[in-house]
Amino acid sequence: MHRAKVIAAKGLAKRRVAAASAAADKHAMQNRFWRIDARPQGNDFSSALTLVEGVVPEPTDGHIVIRNAMLSMDAGTRMWLTDRTDGYQPPLETGTPMTGLVIGRVVASRHADFPEGTLVRAFGHWADYSHVDPVMTGAVKLDPAVEDLRAWFGTLGMNGWTALWGVEQTGAAKQGETVLVSAAAGATGILAVQIAKLLGCKAWGIAGGEDKCRFLTEEIGIDGAVDYKSGDVGAQLDAIGGPDTGIDVYFDNVGGPLLDSVLTRMNHYGRIAVCGLVSDYSSGTRTSPKEFDQVLMRRLRIEGFFSPDFMDQGARLTAQLKQWVDAGQLAMPYDVTHGLENTLSAYAKLFTGANVGKVIVELDQ
Amino acid sequence: MHRAKVIAAKGLAKRRVAAASAAADKHAMQNRFWRIDARPQGNDFSSALTLVEGVVPEPTDGHIVIRNAMLSMDAGTRMWLTDRTDGYQPPLETGTPMTGLVIGRVVASRHADFPEGTLVRAFGHWADYSHVDPVMTGAVKLDPAVEDLRAWFGTLGMNGWTALWGVEQTGAAKQGETVLVSAAAGATGILAVQIAKLLGCKAWGIAGGEDKCRFLTEEIGIDGAVDYKSGDVGAQLDAIGGPDTGIDVYFDNVGGPLLDSVLTRMNHYGRIAVCGLVSDYSSGTRTSPKEFDQVLMRRLRIEGFFSPDFMDQGARLTAQLKQWVDAGQLAMPYDVTHGLENTLSAYAKLFTGANVGKVIVELDQ
Repeated sequence: MHRAKVIAAKGLAKRRVAAASAAADKHAMQNRFWRIDARPQGNDFSSALTLVEGVVPEPTDGHIVIRNAMLSMDAGTRMWLTDRTDGYQPPLETGTPMTGLVIGRVVASRHADFPEGTLVRAFGHWADYSHVDPVMTGAVKLDPAVEDLRAWFGTLGMNGWTALWGVEQTGAAKQGETVLVSAAAGATGILAVQIAKLLGCKAWGIAGGEDKCRFLTEEIGIDGAVDYKSGDVGAQLDAIGGPDTGIDVYFDNVGGPLLDSVLTRMNHYGRIAVCGLVSDYSSGTRTSPKEFDQVLMRRLRIEGFFSPDFMDQGARLTAQLKQWVDAGQLAMPYDVTHGLENTLSAYAKLFTGANVGKVIVELDQ
Repeated sequence: MHRAKVIAAKGLAKRRVAAASAAADKHAMQNRFWRIDARPQGNDFSSALTLVEGVVPEPTDGHIVIRNAMLSMDAGTRMWLTDRTDGYQPPLETGTPMTGLVIGRVVASRHADFPEGTLVRAFGHWADYSHVDPVMTGAVKLDPAVEDLRAWFGTLGMNGWTALWGVEQTGAAKQGETVLVSAAAGATGILAVQIAKLLGCKAWGIAGGEDKCRFLTEEIGIDGAVDYKSGDVGAQLDAIGGPDTGIDVYFDNVGGPLLDSVLTRMNHYGRIAVCGLVSDYSSGTRTSPKEFDQVLMRRLRIEGFFSPDFMDQGARLTAQLKQWVDAGQLAMPYDVTHGLENTLSAYAKLFTGANVGKVIVELDQ
């Protein structure tokens, strides 16, 4: 693994690993990366991850080294930090760098398709440099004509794909139907509500706090917002779609008790597209819908989906998303943190609901 | 409503309602029917339903009177006896006759499509005679060429339709896949496992007790059975489909904790067709899957279905089922009780797992 030296160890004793050998190699590029030292408890990431120093290895055959320009913060990665082996992928091992989507340029390459200088997005590391196999990490070359690189994480990235797939395919939203999205001020949710509108649906969002709800209705222009932190959530949900209608599609990022409140307000033959269960990730609780029998009573369809499953549809999805972006029809607010050393506080925002839109860490180049 | 006289009141004080007026009308046909007097607790039906006597009304405009030849016992009707208003139809009111599928001949008619003498199946009453609107009660004329009338409840009836729809449409079972069915010795389940085989799938069933399991594997010829009343159910479920495979389609009649045990053994992209939640009906508990997050982890699809929703497909479904029946490929054991007065003990079998196959009450003609 990486030769590493601890340079920031919040809450953990500092370690100095192989510092001597790194110093001895004058030609090696210095790297810093966030190492997983333990399974985080709740949102206490600083006790579990440590920023350590090392050197960037020369790429082995078929591998590349990416100089990371920015890191994508995604709630789904929280599960990789647990020791649950029944998740959708095995947990990341302790002692290894934290993995996540990165954007950057290839600075060293032993893969013919990704020569030096190529702008790429891949599942790399929370680090200055990512040394990866581009095929295994789903690396894609990015069109340099897109001025705002951040779009490759947001509107044109995994959030965009997920939002479009979840509303159109899994949710099978039809024109005129009512689509409700939880975590609607988050990166995927904010795209899902807009895509629902673009597909001719009524779009409602659930978010925490008056400011987020007002932002969604007044700035993003959705039909209505439910503030789950305020008052009678059930009564707010009752108002969705007007007095005589309910919810046709629920794009759920959250799970938990909110799912129960929605289940009893779904229209017959409604669809629930399960995108995430963020209420479970940090709390260690498990979503166990008490109103599950509404699946039978209302003949609902509940279906989980996951973006790596439809990678082969990426070109089509990106083309559709880019058309909307170019027409100014798909907005994405960004929540940008500067500096690799500040990654953990950016990450925590996803679980405390502190962000609006896409959370990104920009690295000094 | 019906003029009625109590003739059997197990656990309830006898009542004599309008006996005098019935006796006064010498031309009226005598009727007996099971009246709902209270909401049953658990499987104690005799405290809640009373067999009462009355007269058969002359059919009002658009109505018919059916001389019931047999009654179909169906677990789904248990919910109509509760006071739950969030079920798939409103509860039956106390003081009214118990409703269920009946087969019989029209003996009086004021509906041109159903003249006297027509053999019909309809949602009628647990009674000697059913006075119904044939349109509102889904009455269908039956082909008298089918010798065994009981088939119109079983293989060619609601159980057959439900089994075929659930395996083929909701479950979307594909050739070579593994289909697991709960309550596999019940009327719908026993057809579902056979239909899975006929569609080229491996079929496994869950049933209670060694005898039922042996019947399913040796007589019905399915690939394997899980005895939920015996030993380590998890280990039995692990064996499904062989050591390297799991479950592609779960046709669930039961819900409850068994659903959790199956959720963690589903293959990725598996489908769960929710046909019934019989574990809830009598117990008053609610299925609340603790392993719900497997929907996301394994990208499962869970969907409820209900036969009245696909009535328009009935001709196609019946044609397919009849082809299999005529070829001797679809077996149905019948559990027949004689006499209207014995209806409640026949009904209770559905909830105690005492039956194999279709439970029917045959009436004296």
